[in-house]
Amino acid sequence: MQLLKEKIRQEGKALSSEILKVDSFLNHQIDPELMQEIGQEFARRFTNDGITRILTIESSGIAPSVMAGLALGVPVVFARKRKSLTLQEDFYEAKVHSFTKQQTNTIVVSKAHLVATDKVLVIDDFLANGQAAEGLIDIVQQAEATLAGVGIVIEKSFQEGGDRLRRKGIRVESLASVAALAEGKVTFAGE
Amino acid sequence: MQLLKEKIRQEGKALSSEILKVDSFLNHQIDPELMQEIGQEFARRFTNDGITRILTIESSGIAPSVMAGLALGVPVVFARKRKSLTLQEDFYEAKVHSFTKQQTNTIVVSKAHLVATDKVLVIDDFLANGQAAEGLIDIVQQAEATLAGVGIVIEKSFQEGGDRLRRKGIRVESLASVAALAEGKVTFAGE
Repeated sequence: MQLLKEKIRQEGKALSSEILKVDSFLNHQIDPELMQEIGQEFARRFTNDGITRILTIESSGIAPSVMAGLALGVPVVFARKRKSLTLQEDFYEAKVHSFTKQQTNTIVVSKAHLVATDKVLVIDDFLANGQAAEGLIDIVQQAEATLAGVGIVIEKSFQEGGDRLRRKGIRVESLASVAALAEGKVTFAGE
Repeated sequence: MQLLKEKIRQEGKALSSEILKVDSFLNHQIDPELMQEIGQEFARRFTNDGITRILTIESSGIAPSVMAGLALGVPVVFARKRKSLTLQEDFYEAKVHSFTKQQTNTIVVSKAHLVATDKVLVIDDFLANGQAAEGLIDIVQQAEATLAGVGIVIEKSFQEGGDRLRRKGIRVESLASVAALAEGKVTFAGE
Protein backbone atom coordinates (compact mmCIF):
# COMPACT_ATOMS: atom_id res chain seq x y z
CA MET A 1 0.00 0.00 0.00
CA GLN A 2 1.85 3.01 -1.38
CA LEU A 3 0.29 5.66 0.90
CA LEU A 4 1.29 3.68 3.99
CA LYS A 5 4.86 3.15 2.76
CA GLU A 6 5.19 6.89 2.14
CA LYS A 7 3.93 7.61 5.64
CA ILE A 8 6.43 5.15 7.12
CA ARG A 9 9.25 6.77 5.09
CA GLN A 10 8.20 10.26 6.19
CA GLU A 11 7.38 9.66 9.86
CA GLY A 12 8.60 6.20 10.85
CA LYS A 13 11.76 6.10 12.92
CA ALA A 14 14.04 3.09 12.68
CA LEU A 15 15.61 3.11 16.14
CA SER A 16 17.64 -0.06 15.66
CA SER A 17 17.74 -3.19 13.48
CA GLU A 18 14.63 -4.37 15.38
CA ILE A 19 12.50 -1.37 16.32
CA LEU A 20 10.43 0.75 13.95
CA LYS A 21 8.67 3.54 15.77
CA VAL A 22 5.42 4.69 14.18
CA ASP A 23 4.05 6.55 17.18
CA SER A 24 3.02 9.56 15.13
CA PHE A 25 0.28 7.78 13.16
CA LEU A 26 -0.40 4.25 14.45
CA ASN A 27 0.74 3.32 17.99
CA HIS A 28 0.21 6.40 20.11
CA GLN A 29 -1.00 9.20 17.88
CA ILE A 30 -3.42 7.92 15.22
CA ASP A 31 -4.00 9.41 11.77
CA PRO A 32 -7.74 8.79 11.24
CA GLU A 33 -7.68 9.40 7.46
CA LEU A 34 -4.82 6.94 7.00
CA MET A 35 -6.71 4.44 9.20
CA GLN A 36 -9.73 4.83 6.92
CA GLU A 37 -7.58 4.10 3.85
CA ILE A 38 -6.04 1.10 5.64
CA GLY A 39 -9.48 -0.20 6.63
CA GLN A 40 -10.73 0.14 3.08
CA GLU A 41 -7.66 -1.68 1.74
CA PHE A 42 -8.24 -4.61 4.14
CA ALA A 43 -11.89 -4.62 3.05
CA ARG A 44 -10.88 -4.74 -0.64
CA ARG A 45 -8.54 -7.68 -0.03
CA PHE A 46 -11.12 -9.69 1.91
CA THR A 47 -14.29 -8.49 0.19
CA ASN A 48 -15.14 -11.92 -1.28
CA ASP A 49 -14.36 -13.97 1.81
CA GLY A 50 -17.68 -13.71 3.61
CA ILE A 51 -16.13 -12.14 6.73
CA THR A 52 -18.62 -11.96 9.62
CA ARG A 53 -16.34 -10.63 12.35
CA ILE A 54 -12.96 -8.97 12.82
CA LEU A 55 -10.79 -10.02 15.76
CA THR A 56 -7.95 -7.82 16.98
CA ILE A 57 -6.08 -7.06 20.21
CA GLU A 58 -5.93 -3.92 22.31
CA SER A 59 -4.76 -1.26 21.81
CA SER A 60 -3.05 -0.45 18.51
CA GLY A 61 -5.10 -2.96 16.51
CA ILE A 62 -8.36 -1.21 17.30
CA ALA A 63 -8.21 1.81 14.97
CA PRO A 64 -7.41 -0.05 11.72
CA SER A 65 -9.87 -2.82 12.69
CA VAL A 66 -12.78 -0.46 13.30
CA MET A 67 -12.19 1.18 9.92
CA ALA A 68 -12.04 -2.26 8.25
CA GLY A 69 -15.21 -3.27 10.11
CA LEU A 70 -16.95 -0.14 8.87
CA ALA A 71 -15.92 -0.88 5.28
CA LEU A 72 -16.93 -4.56 5.51
CA GLY A 73 -20.08 -3.93 7.57
CA VAL A 74 -19.10 -6.34 10.35
CA PRO A 75 -18.47 -6.01 14.10
CA VAL A 76 -14.99 -5.85 15.60
CA VAL A 77 -13.96 -7.72 18.75
CA PHE A 78 -10.79 -6.72 20.54
CA ALA A 79 -9.10 -9.26 22.79
CA ARG A 80 -8.38 -7.82 26.22
CA LYS A 81 -5.04 -8.29 27.90
CA ARG A 82 -6.51 -8.93 31.33
CA LYS A 83 -9.89 -9.50 32.89
CA SER A 84 -11.88 -6.58 34.17
CA LEU A 85 -14.67 -6.83 36.70
CA THR A 86 -17.30 -6.01 34.11
CA LEU A 87 -16.38 -9.09 32.08
CA GLN A 88 -17.97 -11.94 33.93
CA GLU A 89 -19.06 -14.64 31.54
CA ASP A 90 -16.94 -17.34 30.01
CA PHE A 91 -13.90 -16.52 27.95
CA TYR A 92 -11.56 -17.94 25.43
CA GLU A 93 -8.01 -17.38 26.67
CA ALA A 94 -4.55 -17.51 25.11
CA LYS A 95 -1.07 -16.56 26.25
CA VAL A 96 0.81 -13.91 24.25
CA HIS A 97 4.42 -12.98 24.85
CA SER A 98 5.44 -9.46 23.86
CA PHE A 99 9.13 -9.18 23.02
CA THR A 100 8.81 -5.38 22.90
CA LYS A 101 7.35 -5.16 26.38
CA GLN A 102 9.19 -8.21 27.75
CA GLN A 103 6.08 -9.66 29.31
CA THR A 104 3.52 -12.41 28.80
CA ASN A 105 -0.15 -11.47 28.87
CA THR A 106 -3.26 -13.57 28.98
CA ILE A 107 -5.61 -12.35 26.28
CA VAL A 108 -9.32 -13.01 26.64
CA VAL A 109 -12.33 -12.93 24.32
CA SER A 110 -15.88 -13.39 25.54
CA LYS A 111 -17.55 -16.52 24.22
CA ALA A 112 -20.59 -14.35 23.52
CA HIS A 113 -18.72 -12.45 20.82
CA LEU A 114 -17.08 -15.20 18.75
CA VAL A 115 -19.05 -18.23 17.60
CA ALA A 116 -18.59 -21.33 15.47
CA THR A 117 -20.46 -19.88 12.49
CA ASP A 118 -18.10 -16.88 12.28
CA LYS A 119 -15.69 -16.31 9.42
CA VAL A 120 -12.98 -14.26 11.06
CA LEU A 121 -10.48 -11.73 9.80
CA VAL A 122 -7.68 -11.26 12.34
CA ILE A 123 -6.12 -7.78 12.18
CA ASP A 124 -3.14 -6.33 14.00
CA ASP A 125 -0.86 -3.32 13.67
CA PHE A 126 2.45 -5.21 13.54
CA LEU A 127 3.55 -8.73 12.67
CA ALA A 128 7.04 -9.53 13.94
CA ASN A 129 7.49 -12.72 15.96
CA GLY A 130 3.84 -13.57 15.38
CA GLN A 131 2.94 -14.07 19.03
CA ALA A 132 -0.13 -11.84 19.04
CA ALA A 133 -1.47 -13.21 15.74
CA GLU A 134 -0.98 -16.78 16.94
CA GLY A 135 -2.80 -16.04 20.20
CA LEU A 136 -5.73 -14.60 18.25
CA ILE A 137 -5.74 -17.58 15.85
CA ASP A 138 -5.70 -19.92 18.87
CA ILE A 139 -8.86 -18.17 20.10
CA VAL A 140 -10.53 -18.46 16.67
CA GLN A 141 -9.82 -22.21 16.81
CA GLN A 142 -11.15 -22.52 20.38
CA ALA A 143 -14.39 -20.94 19.12
CA GLU A 144 -14.42 -23.46 16.23
CA ALA A 145 -14.83 -20.46 13.94
CA THR A 146 -13.27 -20.25 10.46
CA LEU A 147 -10.15 -18.14 9.97
CA ALA A 148 -10.34 -16.26 6.67
CA GLY A 149 -6.90 -14.71 7.05
CA VAL A 150 -4.70 -12.27 8.87
CA GLY A 151 -4.47 -8.59 7.92
CA ILE A 152 -1.37 -6.74 9.11
CA VAL A 153 -0.60 -3.04 8.81
CA ILE A 154 3.20 -3.41 8.99
CA GLU A 155 4.98 -6.75 8.71
CA LYS A 156 8.62 -6.97 9.74
CA SER A 157 9.37 -9.69 7.21
CA PHE A 158 12.90 -10.14 8.55
CA GLN A 159 11.35 -11.65 11.66
CA GLU A 160 9.86 -15.11 11.66
CA GLY A 161 6.15 -14.59 12.42
CA GLY A 162 4.87 -14.10 8.86
CA ASP A 163 6.77 -17.07 7.45
CA ARG A 164 5.60 -19.32 10.25
CA LEU A 165 1.95 -18.41 9.65
CA ARG A 166 2.24 -18.84 5.87
CA ARG A 167 3.90 -22.26 6.27
CA LYS A 168 0.77 -23.32 8.15
CA GLY A 169 -1.28 -22.32 5.09
CA ILE A 170 -2.67 -19.17 6.69
CA ARG A 171 -3.34 -16.27 4.35
CA VAL A 172 -1.43 -13.20 5.56
CA GLU A 173 -2.07 -9.83 3.92
CA SER A 174 0.44 -7.18 4.96
CA LEU A 175 -0.08 -3.62 3.75
CA ALA A 176 3.60 -2.74 4.18
CA SER A 177 6.38 -5.28 4.44
CA VAL A 178 9.64 -4.11 5.98
CA ALA A 179 12.57 -6.26 4.84
CA ALA A 180 15.26 -4.60 6.92
CA LEU A 181 15.78 -1.89 9.50
CA ALA A 182 18.95 -0.06 10.37
CA GLU A 183 19.26 3.03 12.52
CA GLY A 184 17.59 5.76 10.44
CA LYS A 185 16.85 3.50 7.44
CA VAL A 186 13.78 1.46 6.44
CA THR A 187 14.01 -0.98 3.51
CA PHE A 188 10.73 -2.38 2.19
CA ALA A 189 10.44 -5.88 0.69
CA GLY A 190 11.19 -5.84 -3.05
CA GLU A 191 13.54 -2.87 -2.85
CA MET B 1 -28.22 10.80 21.13
CA GLN B 2 -31.28 8.69 20.40
CA LEU B 3 -29.56 5.92 18.43
CA LEU B 4 -27.12 5.35 21.28
CA LYS B 5 -29.85 5.27 23.92
CA GLU B 6 -31.75 2.69 21.87
CA LYS B 7 -28.62 0.57 21.59
CA ILE B 8 -28.08 0.78 25.35
CA ARG B 9 -31.70 -0.25 25.94
CA GLN B 10 -31.43 -3.16 23.52
CA GLU B 11 -27.98 -4.49 24.37
CA GLY B 12 -26.75 -2.85 27.57
CA LYS B 13 -26.89 -4.98 30.68
CA ALA B 14 -27.36 -3.33 34.06
CA LEU B 15 -25.58 -5.81 36.31
CA SER B 16 -26.06 -3.81 39.51
CA SER B 17 -26.71 -0.25 40.66
CA GLU B 18 -23.15 0.61 39.58
CA ILE B 19 -22.25 -1.50 36.54
CA LEU B 20 -23.61 -1.08 33.02
CA LYS B 21 -22.16 -3.63 30.66
CA VAL B 22 -21.95 -2.53 27.03
CA ASP B 23 -19.52 -5.18 25.86
CA SER B 24 -21.51 -5.96 22.73
CA PHE B 25 -20.91 -2.61 21.02
CA LEU B 26 -18.38 -0.43 22.92
CA ASN B 27 -16.00 -2.10 25.41
CA HIS B 28 -15.12 -5.47 23.92
CA GLN B 29 -17.07 -5.92 20.73
CA ILE B 30 -17.33 -2.65 18.77
CA ASP B 31 -20.12 -1.64 16.40
CA PRO B 32 -18.26 0.37 13.73
CA GLU B 33 -21.37 2.03 12.26
CA LEU B 34 -22.50 3.20 15.70
CA MET B 35 -18.96 4.48 16.36
CA GLN B 36 -19.15 6.46 13.12
CA GLU B 37 -22.44 8.04 14.22
CA ILE B 38 -20.94 8.79 17.63
CA GLY B 39 -17.85 10.34 16.06
CA GLN B 40 -19.98 12.51 13.81
CA GLU B 41 -22.10 13.62 16.78
CA PHE B 42 -18.99 14.68 18.73
CA ALA B 43 -17.78 16.51 15.62
CA ARG B 44 -21.12 18.35 15.31
CA ARG B 45 -21.00 19.46 18.94
CA PHE B 46 -17.41 20.74 18.71
CA THR B 47 -17.35 21.84 15.08
CA ASN B 48 -16.88 25.55 15.91
CA ASP B 49 -14.28 25.08 18.64
CA GLY B 50 -11.15 24.97 16.51
CA ILE B 51 -10.15 21.53 17.78
CA THR B 52 -6.62 20.56 16.68
CA ARG B 53 -6.24 17.26 18.51
CA ILE B 54 -8.31 14.62 20.29
CA LEU B 55 -6.91 13.03 23.45
CA THR B 56 -8.28 9.73 24.74
CA ILE B 57 -7.10 6.72 26.76
CA GLU B 58 -6.62 3.11 25.75
CA SER B 59 -8.54 0.99 24.99
CA SER B 60 -12.28 1.69 24.80
CA GLY B 61 -11.83 5.39 24.04
CA ILE B 62 -9.99 4.70 20.81
CA ALA B 63 -12.85 3.69 18.49
CA PRO B 64 -15.16 6.69 19.14
CA SER B 65 -12.14 9.02 19.13
CA VAL B 66 -10.84 7.85 15.76
CA MET B 67 -14.29 8.34 14.24
CA ALA B 68 -14.51 11.83 15.77
CA GLY B 69 -11.01 12.58 14.50
CA LEU B 70 -12.01 11.50 11.02
CA ALA B 71 -15.08 13.74 11.11
CA LEU B 72 -13.13 16.74 12.50
CA GLY B 73 -10.02 16.14 10.36
CA VAL B 74 -7.67 16.06 13.35
CA PRO B 75 -5.25 13.48 14.80
CA VAL B 76 -6.07 11.36 17.84
CA VAL B 77 -3.63 10.65 20.67
CA PHE B 78 -4.35 7.84 23.08
CA ALA B 79 -2.73 7.93 26.51
CA ARG B 80 -0.99 4.66 27.31
CA LYS B 81 -1.40 2.97 30.65
CA ARG B 82 2.25 2.02 30.98
CA LYS B 83 5.49 2.70 29.20
CA SER B 84 6.60 0.42 26.41
CA LEU B 85 10.15 0.07 25.19
CA THR B 86 9.37 1.78 21.89
CA LEU B 87 8.32 4.97 23.71
CA GLN B 88 11.57 6.57 24.71
CA GLU B 89 11.28 10.33 24.66
CA ASP B 90 9.81 12.55 27.32
CA PHE B 91 6.26 12.09 28.55
CA TYR B 92 3.52 13.80 30.36
CA GLU B 93 2.31 11.52 33.13
CA ALA B 94 -0.76 11.35 35.36
CA LYS B 95 -2.14 8.84 37.84
CA VAL B 96 -5.56 7.35 37.16
CA HIS B 97 -7.42 5.12 39.58
CA SER B 98 -9.92 2.69 38.06
CA PHE B 99 -12.70 1.74 40.47
CA THR B 100 -13.87 -0.95 38.04
CA LYS B 101 -10.47 -2.60 37.87
CA GLN B 102 -9.44 -1.69 41.44
CA GLN B 103 -6.04 -0.45 40.35
CA THR B 104 -4.10 2.76 39.81
CA ASN B 105 -2.32 3.22 36.50
CA THR B 106 0.17 5.76 35.33
CA ILE B 107 -0.99 7.14 32.00
CA VAL B 108 1.55 8.68 29.66
CA VAL B 109 1.42 10.90 26.59
CA SER B 110 4.46 11.73 24.52
CA LYS B 111 5.43 15.41 24.61
CA ALA B 112 5.89 15.15 20.84
CA HIS B 113 2.14 14.65 20.34
CA LEU B 114 0.58 17.34 22.51
CA VAL B 115 1.77 20.93 22.37
CA ALA B 116 0.91 24.32 23.83
CA THR B 117 -0.79 25.53 20.63
CA ASP B 118 -3.25 22.61 20.68
CA LYS B 119 -6.95 23.00 21.31
CA VAL B 120 -7.88 19.62 22.72
CA LEU B 121 -11.07 17.60 22.82
CA VAL B 122 -10.83 14.88 25.47
CA ILE B 123 -12.97 11.83 24.64
CA ASP B 124 -13.71 8.71 26.67
CA ASP B 125 -16.22 5.88 26.60
CA PHE B 126 -17.53 6.28 30.17
CA LEU B 127 -17.65 9.08 32.72
CA ALA B 128 -18.36 7.82 36.24
CA ASN B 129 -16.01 8.93 39.02
CA GLY B 130 -14.15 11.11 36.52
CA GLN B 131 -10.70 9.72 37.26
CA ALA B 132 -9.72 9.04 33.65
CA ALA B 133 -11.05 12.38 32.37
CA GLU B 134 -9.23 14.25 35.15
CA GLY B 135 -5.98 12.44 34.36
CA LEU B 136 -6.31 13.42 30.69
CA ILE B 137 -7.15 17.03 31.62
CA ASP B 138 -4.11 17.08 33.90
CA ILE B 139 -1.98 16.11 30.90
CA VAL B 140 -3.58 18.82 28.71
CA GLN B 141 -2.63 21.33 31.43
CA GLN B 142 0.92 19.99 31.70
CA ALA B 143 1.26 20.57 27.93
CA GLU B 144 -0.11 24.12 28.44
CA ALA B 145 -2.62 23.30 25.71
CA THR B 146 -6.22 24.60 25.72
CA LEU B 147 -9.01 22.25 26.75
CA ALA B 148 -12.07 22.75 24.52
CA GLY B 149 -14.17 20.23 26.39
CA VAL B 150 -14.81 16.62 27.24
CA GLY B 151 -16.86 14.29 25.03
CA ILE B 152 -18.29 11.20 26.74
CA VAL B 153 -20.16 8.33 25.13
CA ILE B 154 -22.01 7.25 28.30
CA GLU B 155 -22.12 9.35 31.47
CA LYS B 156 -23.28 7.74 34.69
CA SER B 157 -24.73 10.99 36.01
CA PHE B 158 -25.52 9.41 39.41
CA GLN B 159 -21.79 9.29 40.02
CA GLU B 160 -19.83 12.40 40.83
CA GLY B 161 -17.37 12.80 37.95
CA GLY B 162 -19.52 14.83 35.59
CA ASP B 163 -20.68 17.27 38.27
CA ARG B 164 -17.15 17.78 39.52
CA LEU B 165 -15.88 18.63 36.03
CA ARG B 166 -18.80 21.00 35.33
CA ARG B 167 -18.28 22.79 38.66
CA LYS B 168 -14.76 23.55 37.44
CA GLY B 169 -16.28 25.21 34.36
CA ILE B 170 -15.33 22.40 32.03
CA ARG B 171 -17.69 21.75 29.14
CA VAL B 172 -18.85 18.12 29.24
CA GLU B 173 -20.85 16.71 26.34
CA SER B 174 -22.32 13.29 27.09
CA LEU B 175 -24.12 11.46 24.29
CA ALA B 176 -26.13 9.34 26.74
CA SER B 177 -26.64 10.20 30.38
CA VAL B 178 -27.66 7.36 32.68
CA ALA B 179 -29.45 8.66 35.79
CA ALA B 180 -29.90 5.33 37.56
CA LEU B 181 -29.10 1.66 37.21
CA ALA B 182 -30.81 -1.26 38.86
CA GLU B 183 -30.37 -4.90 38.02
CA GLY B 184 -31.92 -5.25 34.57
CA LYS B 185 -33.06 -1.61 34.32
CA VAL B 186 -31.45 1.52 32.83
CA THR B 187 -33.00 4.95 33.48
CA PHE B 188 -31.73 7.83 31.38
CA ALA B 189 -31.56 11.41 32.64
CA GLY B 190 -34.84 13.25 32.06
CA GLU B 191 -36.96 10.12 32.23
